[in-house]
Amino acid sequence: MNEFALIEKYFAPLSHDGLQDDAAVLSIPAGYELVVSSDTLNAGTHFLEEASPADIAYKALRSNLSDLAATGADPLSYQLNIAFPRKPDEEWLQKFAKALAEDQNTFGIFCSGGDTTSIKGPLSISITVLGLVPEGKAVKRDGAKEGDILILTGPVGDAWVGLQILQGKLKTEDDAHFIHAYYKPQPRLDLNEVVRRHAHAAIDISDGLVAEIEHICKASNLTVELQISKISFSPEAMKLLHTQKIKPEDLLTGGDDYQLLLAVSPEAALHFPYAPIGRFLAGPAKVNVFDAQNRPLTLSHKGWAHF
Amino acid sequence: MNEFALIEKYFAPLSHDGLQDDAAVLSIPAGYELVVSSDTLNAGTHFLEEASPADIAYKALRSNLSDLAATGADPLSYQLNIAFPRKPDEEWLQKFAKALAEDQNTFGIFCSGGDTTSIKGPLSISITVLGLVPEGKAVKRDGAKEGDILILTGPVGDAWVGLQILQGKLKTEDDAHFIHAYYKPQPRLDLNEVVRRHAHAAIDISDGLVAEIEHICKASNLTVELQISKISFSPEAMKLLHTQKIKPEDLLTGGDDYQLLLAVSPEAALHFPYAPIGRFLAGPAKVNVFDAQNRPLTLSHKGWAHF
Repeated sequence: MNEFALIEKYFAPLSHDGLQDDAAVLSIPAGYELVVSSDTLNAGTHFLEEASPADIAYKALRSNLSDLAATGADPLSYQLNIAFPRKPDEEWLQKFAKALAEDQNTFGIFCSGGDTTSIKGPLSISITVLGLVPEGKAVKRDGAKEGDILILTGPVGDAWVGLQILQGKLKTEDDAHFIHAYYKPQPRLDLNEVVRRHAHAAIDISDGLVAEIEHICKASNLTVELQISKISFSPEAMKLLHTQKIKPEDLLTGGDDYQLLLAVSPEAALHFPYAPIGRFLAGPAKVNVFDAQNRPLTLSHKGWAHF
Repeated sequence: MNEFALIEKYFAPLSHDGLQDDAAVLSIPAGYELVVSSDTLNAGTHFLEEASPADIAYKALRSNLSDLAATGADPLSYQLNIAFPRKPDEEWLQKFAKALAEDQNTFGIFCSGGDTTSIKGPLSISITVLGLVPEGKAVKRDGAKEGDILILTGPVGDAWVGLQILQGKLKTEDDAHFIHAYYKPQPRLDLNEVVRRHAHAAIDISDGLVAEIEHICKASNLTVELQISKISFSPEAMKLLHTQKIKPEDLLTGGDDYQLLLAVSPEAALHFPYAPIGRFLAGPAKVNVFDAQNRPLTLSHKGWAHF
């Protein structure tokens, strides 16, 4: 089966038009803007070489969808660029395409195109997602205002624990929970409506919580006072903290989480069922971290960066 | 310089918004549809490992732009996903970004985003281009009609010769010309207006001339009679044919060319300053090749496919 037969059998069914053309033509409804974002995942860097095809599909598509959620955009379609180290076997392709089909159904998106190639290296997947947002309603990083409250939409660190387990560095009672967090994150598209309505600024925390707060500070030119004790962890992660298998700092700086950070007015904060974790102040673009006793804290690293 | 500093220094100047957000928000003017297409280029597969940063930039962007040309769409923006085997040096980045900036200017496009990652393998570049086409005017592969003329918008095979030279398999008087054809192809965006107006179907020939004609046949469910002697070669390639350094078949099946194949009515063919190379007939979706004496011809291979 060559490249074209492979596309026709496994990827064309994920599309609306059979992927017959190199380019897709999409209608953008009046009153909407287009939102576009891209993420690349490379085997051995972004997921383990031995990851299952379904897990790779989930992680690749969902990490991209999270960037749409951070702007309040609804998913439209995605381009799938996939480079294979060798001719992929049919079982792998079948499972990969099945997971994509499942997530397409979950998130209301379809495959509008892409490119299938060979590479003298590891499996590499680049996805570009397209989304729609009502005109003028896209949320960006630079809209935070002095006096705004910083909200985090859920617990952090489970994906980091999942990676430690996958790498054989940790063993827990809840391995399946943590590995699920690593490979099958939940993009917060469920919050789109309320994010568009109430958030002055938003970002997902895929590169690490503190690093991402810094991105908002920089774009909005404000200081954030971060109350680290207000950040919530999952019950599963709390168990590990209590037995001192891991440190809170590990959970805070690990990355690969897909909750959102939102800057909202104190009044709007009431619309979100999440505890505030900080506030925005006039001042230089930086994050000041405080512990439960309100003492300044210095973190050894802030997040994940390539190179 | 980490990933974020690198993006800020070299890639942000290629954007309109400073690439501050993970997602870009784009306005699609009323009366237009969005056209989207993606191509991946991997070092050692799509270009030589030792290719210059400028040549890699040209080839990556232009091969994508060619897919817009094949639909008659005008370039809007592109997403640049680039995976580096190691931390790239600044001189490389500077030259790569300069070439992109030059082509952005040439083709009226800007960088709307992307992703910069590390990979345990060769340099890999995935670009997704976005374009605009007046509503209902996009040209596709499936519109060819019985009786249509098949037009090719220029000579083929120079890129194949360029690759042979780069691989040390051939030496010519015109090496620079052929290498230029390989690394800096000319997407036929100059034809957009006339393609939108007159072409029933269109495709670029990046995967090889005969293979691409087959794609149109299949999509349009027609037979093409291809008069192979009508296909033109560059004066430089003709020299090589005359000295029998290469065979016509090499030029015809090499791939990496970026001319367009167009299906047009016999009347519309007059609007194109190119000789017809074939015609569309009712019948099964296939290409029948004829030589100068109108004898049926069988080609040993039709184009390029991965795997």
